[in-house]
Amino acid sequence: MINKKIIIQVMGLLLLIEGVFIGISALVSLIYKQYDFNALLITTIICFAIGFSLKLLTRNAEKNIGKREGYIIVSLVWIIFSVFGALPFVISGAIPSYADAFFETISGFTTTGASILNDIESIPHGLLFWRSLTQWLGGMGIIVLSIAILPIFGIGGMQLFVAEVPGPTPDKLHPRIKETAKRLWGIYVLFTLAEVILLKLGGMNWFDAINHSFTTMATGGYSTKQASIAHFNSPFIHYVIIIFMFLAGTNFTLSYFALHFKFRKVFKNEEFRYYLGFILFFTFVITFTLWHFDGFGLEKSFRDSAFQVVSIITTTGFATADYLQWTPFVIVMIFALMFFGGSAGSTGGSIKIVRITLLLKNSYQELKRIIHPNAIIPVRINGKSVPAPIISNILAFVVIYMLITIVSTALISALGYDLETSLGAVAATLGNIGPGIGMVGPIENYAHFPDIGKWFLSFLMLIGRLELFTVLILFSPAFWKK
Amino acid sequence: MINKKIIIQVMGLLLLIEGVFIGISALVSLIYKQYDFNALLITTIICFAIGFSLKLLTRNAEKNIGKREGYIIVSLVWIIFSVFGALPFVISGAIPSYADAFFETISGFTTTGASILNDIESIPHGLLFWRSLTQWLGGMGIIVLSIAILPIFGIGGMQLFVAEVPGPTPDKLHPRIKETAKRLWGIYVLFTLAEVILLKLGGMNWFDAINHSFTTMATGGYSTKQASIAHFNSPFIHYVIIIFMFLAGTNFTLSYFALHFKFRKVFKNEEFRYYLGFILFFTFVITFTLWHFDGFGLEKSFRDSAFQVVSIITTTGFATADYLQWTPFVIVMIFALMFFGGSAGSTGGSIKIVRITLLLKNSYQELKRIIHPNAIIPVRINGKSVPAPIISNILAFVVIYMLITIVSTALISALGYDLETSLGAVAATLGNIGPGIGMVGPIENYAHFPDIGKWFLSFLMLIGRLELFTVLILFSPAFWKK
Repeated sequence: MINKKIIIQVMGLLLLIEGVFIGISALVSLIYKQYDFNALLITTIICFAIGFSLKLLTRNAEKNIGKREGYIIVSLVWIIFSVFGALPFVISGAIPSYADAFFETISGFTTTGASILNDIESIPHGLLFWRSLTQWLGGMGIIVLSIAILPIFGIGGMQLFVAEVPGPTPDKLHPRIKETAKRLWGIYVLFTLAEVILLKLGGMNWFDAINHSFTTMATGGYSTKQASIAHFNSPFIHYVIIIFMFLAGTNFTLSYFALHFKFRKVFKNEEFRYYLGFILFFTFVITFTLWHFDGFGLEKSFRDSAFQVVSIITTTGFATADYLQWTPFVIVMIFALMFFGGSAGSTGGSIKIVRITLLLKNSYQELKRIIHPNAIIPVRINGKSVPAPIISNILAFVVIYMLITIVSTALISALGYDLETSLGAVAATLGNIGPGIGMVGPIENYAHFPDIGKWFLSFLMLIGRLELFTVLILFSPAFWKK
Repeated sequence: MINKKIIIQVMGLLLLIEGVFIGISALVSLIYKQYDFNALLITTIICFAIGFSLKLLTRNAEKNIGKREGYIIVSLVWIIFSVFGALPFVISGAIPSYADAFFETISGFTTTGASILNDIESIPHGLLFWRSLTQWLGGMGIIVLSIAILPIFGIGGMQLFVAEVPGPTPDKLHPRIKETAKRLWGIYVLFTLAEVILLKLGGMNWFDAINHSFTTMATGGYSTKQASIAHFNSPFIHYVIIIFMFLAGTNFTLSYFALHFKFRKVFKNEEFRYYLGFILFFTFVITFTLWHFDGFGLEKSFRDSAFQVVSIITTTGFATADYLQWTPFVIVMIFALMFFGGSAGSTGGSIKIVRITLLLKNSYQELKRIIHPNAIIPVRINGKSVPAPIISNILAFVVIYMLITIVSTALISALGYDLETSLGAVAATLGNIGPGIGMVGPIENYAHFPDIGKWFLSFLMLIGRLELFTVLILFSPAFWKK
């Protein structure tokens, strides 16, 4: 039997937490005295009222949370947060349609950054703050999820690559999760503060600096400006954001080591080396292309390339340039990068560097296996050989990722969109990036989709963010069997 | 040590065989008294001269052909045939550029059907016959390769699915290959003859009937008309070709059973059921879309859908309609179908139905594996469980297929092509289909590519046709190590 009461109790608790943060946003709106205060206050009250009621109703719940309850809770967290988090937008009238508001909110909590707003600057400050906060909270959630919870679930073959983390072991779940989460959240907060200060120094006002730091560290990509980071014509700001996007796409455990001066551990990590390698390679090729063929200056070519490459590979989705205006060669590379994603244990989404790395290694090993059919030829990472079931799990993950991409592209195209837009929208939402290609490029948005399309893309953001299996498993009859 | 002499000897033998067929084409050209006779005759002489010289030079070769020699020979067969098969086009002046002629010829031998010809009707009959014959011979080659040779190599995890074939076992290689090849070639020839007669009855002249039968059974798709099958405004002809494309995309072993009235064996074969299922599903959806939204009549909607679906899924590439004019939803489905491919043991290319089937099954099983991490949950096909290394090999195949698609798309786009055209050209050549999407759609061709692009796409046709590993393995240092 699934322990329904404990699930409801956790939901109640989460609503209380959400209420606190919406309350904080209400306070922010007080500073600016705009029309959004009431909506934020009402939602805070709703969250508290329902949250307390659920807690009260389930106070006699048994405390055991098994694996199955775990799966259900994880998926519900993101859904419940979005369902209620959308209310301030609707109640205030800033986003009149609930489908739009839900899309914008789940796009926040999943750190996607796909927006339906056509005029971001017209949204009052309290709501903008809440919008950025959804991403920052989503990022926090993902750190716990990817470093502490998913390895226990055995999702996505990640258990191996976070094993060396000072993290949880299945037998002592609760205290270790807390410990790991605390340490990594500490780093997350620290980096956020550091970025706020640097962006302020770079000329942003406090409000913009805080919002952009929230959404950088979450690899979310929501901006307070319609033109995204292109609004800020400051190379310093661009470079600061490049660096912090890079950090947000790095395994936070490695940052933990780096902050403890254990740099050897960082550079010995193969995923990190591939991550760095891919970024340098694509930045170099695109810099050269822009500089040589499009005639930009060298510094600008480099900055634009590095910004867009890091923004896309980390699945942040900020933009300082409309990459769809570049040569097709670069567009194809940017599009390919949408399938790379950040590192395991970062806030980045999509397939993730460690999977891409193992994929490449396994492909080469497969050739060797054909040549020597009787030899056992393992795939190694960080000097250790990866067990076959994990490789199989990773291959299955990537294959399912591709299948979902293809089927979803067909479904979106059934709404009348061309191949490029359909593929772009799917890659950018499933990969939690935000901007895609076609009609959802970096200077476009998702407002033009019909509601059914927005609901569907919201679903893609959710399954992408939760490493596919976490959500898909709920649709499998085997999960519900006793 | 690699036995180079035997490799050269086999090449000599193959040139003699090619010479015979070019000679036959020369005889055909005699009937029509066009300018191509001399070119075909000269090439025949070249083939015989070089073929005999190679045989003579290597008469003292040791007769042992190992696995490594096998790999090298297989790749060389397609290359040598294309290198010499291109000569008649160049010598006659019908295709002045050697890059173009080589592209057209390897596109034939790989049964791709991608063409650089802007005015097919202006090509003399002897050359057209040779062009169709390259596909028919390529199809024969593929039947032997996929049913008799690749399983011995252990390529692409196919050994399991052809094991029940009355075919070769590694210990008794030579006689069994011969036996299997003979039986299946018999069916291939029988089907070709049947189609010739039906197409003649449908109103084609003998020349067109023979040529189109050659290229149907090879799932090649070369037509003697610039407008492809759309040139023949006869529903009867369209339906005949649909049926024979379907047969060509079916495992020839199953046809062998069917011709011996063992229909149960056919319908119990899971790959066949999926193959049929996919075709019915996509035909139904596209028929409905065309009929409902585009307002075609029901029969025409059905015929156009069935024709295009079967043509693409079997990787034939004939066209009776320009699918790029249909709604985006249909275009996306057609594009997705380019990655399906025919059955194992057919002349169809691309990923192949059995791999897609196992992929889908394994994805679902992976969810179960996550729910029950300690249980061993195999993937079953035809009632038998598939060993894990074979699943791993198939997953690796699909992943490498996708990697090659992505990297090649980037390279083609570097020539200045947009994403859709680049992706379309890569999918259509790597999958041995012919027409793609974008600027290589069914009423377009490949003439507009620069030479470097044609050479690269020729390479893709080759590796796609030889199930990737056969060629890729030659680039791996492990292959050449003692």
